[in-house]
Amino acid sequence: MGVDMMKISTMKEVCEQLVSADSILIFPHILMDGDTLGSSVALCLAMRAKGKVSHILIEDAIPGNLKFLDGGLCTTNIDVIEQPDVCIAVDCADIERFVRRRKKFLEGKSTLSIDHHKTAKYFADINFIDSAAAATGEIVYDMLAMLGIKPDKEQGEAIYAAILTDTGNFQYTNTTTRSHLITVDLFNLGIDHGYVNRMLYQNTRLQKLHISGKILNTIKMLAGGEAVMAYVTGDMLKEAGALMEDTEGASEMLRNISGVELSIFVKEAGKKDTKFSMRSKQWVDTTELSLKYDGGGHTKAAGCTIPAPIFEAMKMMEADVEEYFAKNKEK
Amino acid sequence: MGVDMMKISTMKEVCEQLVSADSILIFPHILMDGDTLGSSVALCLAMRAKGKVSHILIEDAIPGNLKFLDGGLCTTNIDVIEQPDVCIAVDCADIERFVRRRKKFLEGKSTLSIDHHKTAKYFADINFIDSAAAATGEIVYDMLAMLGIKPDKEQGEAIYAAILTDTGNFQYTNTTTRSHLITVDLFNLGIDHGYVNRMLYQNTRLQKLHISGKILNTIKMLAGGEAVMAYVTGDMLKEAGALMEDTEGASEMLRNISGVELSIFVKEAGKKDTKFSMRSKQWVDTTELSLKYDGGGHTKAAGCTIPAPIFEAMKMMEADVEEYFAKNKEK
Repeated sequence: MGVDMMKISTMKEVCEQLVSADSILIFPHILMDGDTLGSSVALCLAMRAKGKVSHILIEDAIPGNLKFLDGGLCTTNIDVIEQPDVCIAVDCADIERFVRRRKKFLEGKSTLSIDHHKTAKYFADINFIDSAAAATGEIVYDMLAMLGIKPDKEQGEAIYAAILTDTGNFQYTNTTTRSHLITVDLFNLGIDHGYVNRMLYQNTRLQKLHISGKILNTIKMLAGGEAVMAYVTGDMLKEAGALMEDTEGASEMLRNISGVELSIFVKEAGKKDTKFSMRSKQWVDTTELSLKYDGGGHTKAAGCTIPAPIFEAMKMMEADVEEYFAKNKEK
Repeated sequence: MGVDMMKISTMKEVCEQLVSADSILIFPHILMDGDTLGSSVALCLAMRAKGKVSHILIEDAIPGNLKFLDGGLCTTNIDVIEQPDVCIAVDCADIERFVRRRKKFLEGKSTLSIDHHKTAKYFADINFIDSAAAATGEIVYDMLAMLGIKPDKEQGEAIYAAILTDTGNFQYTNTTTRSHLITVDLFNLGIDHGYVNRMLYQNTRLQKLHISGKILNTIKMLAGGEAVMAYVTGDMLKEAGALMEDTEGASEMLRNISGVELSIFVKEAGKKDTKFSMRSKQWVDTTELSLKYDGGGHTKAAGCTIPAPIFEAMKMMEADVEEYFAKNKEK
């Protein structure tokens, strides 16, 4: 779709569609995070409170630490609403983010998208994209205000969970005064922020700690201490009884080492398939390192896959890293 | 000192002393954290901006991730101000929190204390204790407002660091709307919150990760999965090249395991000296477990020492834990 075809819409248009609809089907993205699910839950609850039929249609499992948000709103039953008046995508930058539900989405009499990603595509009839929002949860908060709905405790906690997770507990640089001010309002509405934090962050799988221990034993410093690499193999996962998703956060943990500018976390994805996940602190452009292998991403967070066995692929990447640092220090 | 001797003072009294003083010596507590140092730095900078002689007197090392706050304000030179007009303790619940500087503190023509701990003692001439403040940094923020001082970027970042660390990035239940509203104002004053977060949290010692890996290998579940124990020995520290302080946060990491109610982190403090650090999520009273060995603390965070070799002491504690859970499940 070209720029001329983009349907850039206002929040008011989104709200008008919701007001006139009797049935609303909500689409969070796959590999759900706190923002997509929290935003969907708050919206679904608000629509039900307005007497509408509303469900959240999902296609993959809810991560353990987000299950407290669900409350029976989520379903994998594609026919939960036969022909929805409105299908609304929440926090989905691309229609590919709900690929197995795409057909159903397009069956909505009207399709909407609300999102905050800078790279968001305009795939719906009505698209409200606010890239200044730290979380789609902030957009939902504003929408409820526009609809004259005062969030109850449950809705407030879902919005809070959305903001909390997408701002990294207000740590990421996307955090704004708006994030904090909305939180103030949610506190005043009576949310139990201690409960939300306990649910989100005190629910680590034991297997995650086991695999973390093994990963930490593989740490190798590169580029004179400015880069660090660590890895996980299928055997390590088996020994720890862990899943690949239990290694989430490893790249960030490695990047947080004092003096480290670049971290690379390596995953054995198959016998001849090795995935690299890179994070940088300030000046390393991780896309430069990933593009060589047709990867991509952002300046400070990128990834790629090398079609080679893990230890062979790591050697290739190590050479690239040393070369990158040598070249960029000459400058 | 009895309650009748307590000198409960107002913020106005504290400010009046500061206004009339020419020289101000500031006392953070030992084992400095972001709140005691950030609050001290903000206050020291503000006093200097008012043309006063002001220094921060310390007696132990500034932790690596807090060094960015210092900016040359901190000194171990006890004679940096010969006889200060004002000596002010910041975030110190007890005079024992600066025991090696106590004599100097009492040499101040006037002694002040500002703090937010519920257990704060009234050891100074003038004591302003606000236990509703999530951080002493919030008190300093209010004091600067009362003094008509608009925090500059550096002062603002020091206050932000204080609030951030003492609220656990706004996660702890002590966080209030006030914490968020002050943060909004600091954002508006132009602080670089990304910089503060990078300095505070992207400065992990490599040795901390090494010792974490080893600790994670010692995890043992107790009480049918509701309790967890892990340990660190002197040999493990040596192998990792780590210090005992690199194990900070281990108790919390263990408590955050899904399904775990009680975590116990065990440290070999000597050949016949074993320290236990306990954390609970909701219902276990950790003081009950620690009091048997003359320990103490809070309901959800307590500690004790058993005068026995680590593995022997651990067996004793394991038995106590199993008994505690068995007893409390009967109920």
